[in-house]
Amino acid sequence: MTIKVVTVGEKILGTNDAKAGENRKRLDEHSIFTINIMSSPGAGKTSLILATIKRFSKDVRIGVVEGDVASSVDAEKVNAIGIPVVQINTGGGCHLDAFMVEKGLGNLNLEEIDLLFIENVGNLICPNNYRLGEDVRLMIASMPEGDDKPYKYPGMFADSDVVILNKTDLQPYLDFSEKSFRKVVTGLNPDVVIFPISCKTGSGLTGWFTWLEEALRKKKKQ
Amino acid sequence: MTIKVVTVGEKILGTNDAKAGENRKRLDEHSIFTINIMSSPGAGKTSLILATIKRFSKDVRIGVVEGDVASSVDAEKVNAIGIPVVQINTGGGCHLDAFMVEKGLGNLNLEEIDLLFIENVGNLICPNNYRLGEDVRLMIASMPEGDDKPYKYPGMFADSDVVILNKTDLQPYLDFSEKSFRKVVTGLNPDVVIFPISCKTGSGLTGWFTWLEEALRKKKKQ
Repeated sequence: MTIKVVTVGEKILGTNDAKAGENRKRLDEHSIFTINIMSSPGAGKTSLILATIKRFSKDVRIGVVEGDVASSVDAEKVNAIGIPVVQINTGGGCHLDAFMVEKGLGNLNLEEIDLLFIENVGNLICPNNYRLGEDVRLMIASMPEGDDKPYKYPGMFADSDVVILNKTDLQPYLDFSEKSFRKVVTGLNPDVVIFPISCKTGSGLTGWFTWLEEALRKKKKQ
Repeated sequence: MTIKVVTVGEKILGTNDAKAGENRKRLDEHSIFTINIMSSPGAGKTSLILATIKRFSKDVRIGVVEGDVASSVDAEKVNAIGIPVVQINTGGGCHLDAFMVEKGLGNLNLEEIDLLFIENVGNLICPNNYRLGEDVRLMIASMPEGDDKPYKYPGMFADSDVVILNKTDLQPYLDFSEKSFRKVVTGLNPDVVIFPISCKTGSGLTGWFTWLEEALRKKKKQ
């Protein structure tokens, strides 16, 4: 399988939401459950996608849109395990937008996908301002980044449906208070679901998998 | 000491470089050595500044411009140890620009500063496109982010004068190849100086301090 690379520029925010609505309609027509995954660089977006593919790929047809400033390192990892993937290089842009995702969707066979991951560019700020057509907005916070991140990047924490707290295997070596983190996050976002996990050890993944199973079941019924 | 908060919007890139030149001239007139510190969220910008203040503040008059999307958490830490600091909140913007820094400089007494740290917004992408008037561009990569970051965010690695590789205390618990990291970084940027350090344990800081001493000496002679 060859990886398709789509290189696109930045579009104007004003028209983004309308395009996101069109993407959503198109994805809904194919009953595709779509998750927009956002985080800082290196927090574990690709690791979460790979772990989730490993758990679900026997029963669920999965596709991936990979967004990056440059390179196709992550897309190659997904491609290597036989999952359809399209790489979007933003050419310097610090976030995906709905137009880029539209181009990505044009390079996937939507008839053969039930669950779509969109891996956003690693950035805690601008990706939050661009809806892509997703059902769910998921962000990953990485423990080594510190428990004060929700104070400093409140927008994404406030607007995400799911917060994954990754790299919990490093907790013994960090000054990270999960209690304090949870307090600030739920203060910003009372409805959020938080899953502390370690993609490295697999710890905590069951909670996330159960949540996703239920979400996929609900989507099918729609 | 009260912390000054300047809230500013985004400016157009086209005029940024001219304003950065003006800032640089103004800082040069006061013989201020200025370092623009960039990194992902939570990589250790404030920790590096605090450790460097601790080492140099007896001999060198230091000032800090703190850039954040929201909050003044970091400025409070700097203020607590008696160093002049001005907080710039970008109001959603994902980087500092030269106009914001100009406003920041207007709130510091430049007569009483020899070394100025500008802590940029936590983001590996856009801060690289905006010169601020600095002498030196320093970026921090955090080991837990992974050794593949130079592939994925090549711009900042290519354009930085100094790369600090922080959180080396976590190396025993990570799959991070320093050799591979160095190879890619020096491939992008043959003139770069790399300092592997741990702000937590203090390991490796001496190399950085020696480099900075020499840089301050050169600046005085200009």
